[in-house]
Amino acid sequence: MKHNDILDRIHVILVGVTHPGNIGATARAMKTMGLSHLRLVQPKHFPNAEATARAAGADDILAKATVYDTFEESLQDCHLIMGTSARRRSISWPTLTPKQSVAKALSSAGKVAIVFGREQSGLTNKELDLCHFLIQISSNPTFSSLNLASAVQIVAYEMRCGVENHDDDLKMGRAYASAESMAQFYQHLEDTLIHIGFLDPNNPRQLKRHLYRFFNRIQLLKPEVNIFRGIFTAIQEHHKRKNN
Amino acid sequence: MKHNDILDRIHVILVGVTHPGNIGATARAMKTMGLSHLRLVQPKHFPNAEATARAAGADDILAKATVYDTFEESLQDCHLIMGTSARRRSISWPTLTPKQSVAKALSSAGKVAIVFGREQSGLTNKELDLCHFLIQISSNPTFSSLNLASAVQIVAYEMRCGVENHDDDLKMGRAYASAESMAQFYQHLEDTLIHIGFLDPNNPRQLKRHLYRFFNRIQLLKPEVNIFRGIFTAIQEHHKRKNN
Repeated sequence: MKHNDILDRIHVILVGVTHPGNIGATARAMKTMGLSHLRLVQPKHFPNAEATARAAGADDILAKATVYDTFEESLQDCHLIMGTSARRRSISWPTLTPKQSVAKALSSAGKVAIVFGREQSGLTNKELDLCHFLIQISSNPTFSSLNLASAVQIVAYEMRCGVENHDDDLKMGRAYASAESMAQFYQHLEDTLIHIGFLDPNNPRQLKRHLYRFFNRIQLLKPEVNIFRGIFTAIQEHHKRKNN
Repeated sequence: MKHNDILDRIHVILVGVTHPGNIGATARAMKTMGLSHLRLVQPKHFPNAEATARAAGADDILAKATVYDTFEESLQDCHLIMGTSARRRSISWPTLTPKQSVAKALSSAGKVAIVFGREQSGLTNKELDLCHFLIQISSNPTFSSLNLASAVQIVAYEMRCGVENHDDDLKMGRAYASAESMAQFYQHLEDTLIHIGFLDPNNPRQLKRHLYRFFNRIQLLKPEVNIFRGIFTAIQEHHKRKNN
């Protein structure tokens, strides 16, 4: 999958924007990071000269922005819907950091909606009910009033960084091991540790948890799985030679 | 080291800002991420009502901002100086991504300056000569005109994420293994692989490089080093038992 293909699947949706300057600043923030699809739900003023001025060269994004009467309509063709918030919510929505949201976007097929709420009040709970995830941008607990276009800037920046890292990984043949390959890897690891007497099969819990946590933290790449499994095999072969 | 201690060592320096609104928006961007020290070198208009309006509640940062006549003076008490740029420079400055710049800030002692240049032209080469590193924010090659306060927002956001991750690591006792401990680890690994016949001591190059690259990529935590060294010892003990 190419870089631009992924950024091209992302649609930024602004719900109920009051200040047209924020629409222009959002377009600029998007374009600097390579995003181009903007949807507006009930903007107070649009099109608008101030929006165009603040877009500062990203007016092509304003020109092809689409306006919707309802939030539901703006989402109809989207497969993954992520709402954003700078504030901590009391209700426990399934929450992602901006970095985690990139992984979700990368692994999804189809159009991805990233939704930003009103300047003063954000998204309503009813609107959040339509989102699969809430992206929570870490902020100063005593001053979390992130400007709307700044929030767009941060999420768009993370999306760009994420797809660039992803591209680099692919370029270097550094794709991560599949879940199936990891299951085989864990089995091979466990057999080997039992073999050398390091893992007690009757009491494996604590050690296995540590090892799972470790390998989940680092996310093995395909060639790394091969090296490790080669080592496991060498340990077991060595053992067999000694026994014969 | 506590979270706020690190953010409190960071000083944002704006050089030659033309639009006072950008000073206010910068103050707001800083405060949302927990930064509070702002320095201004030859601002065109300051103090200014538009700056205060755009600060939107971060006017305490404007009130204690310091103004300097020259860039050199603004840097005098800083130990680490990092300039920023959204454009690719033809001259090859030592360049960091925003994420990499956080590691530099975390590992430095004393005050850290993060420097942002003029709206239209950025920092001059002469100004960049005074910077230890250039932070390059990834952007759309055909539209890299990031708004000044948006650039501040991204770098401030990364600083906050970086210190939060660092705090989490410390809280969970997840400090990384020291260089000394890693050197012992590599020796133990090498001995073990030779022991089981997986590594040929006469031709170790390619495999050792792969393993070093792997363990450098993932940065082992202290308890992880202990688990691995326990496994190495078990493999060697097992071998000895078989030989006796």
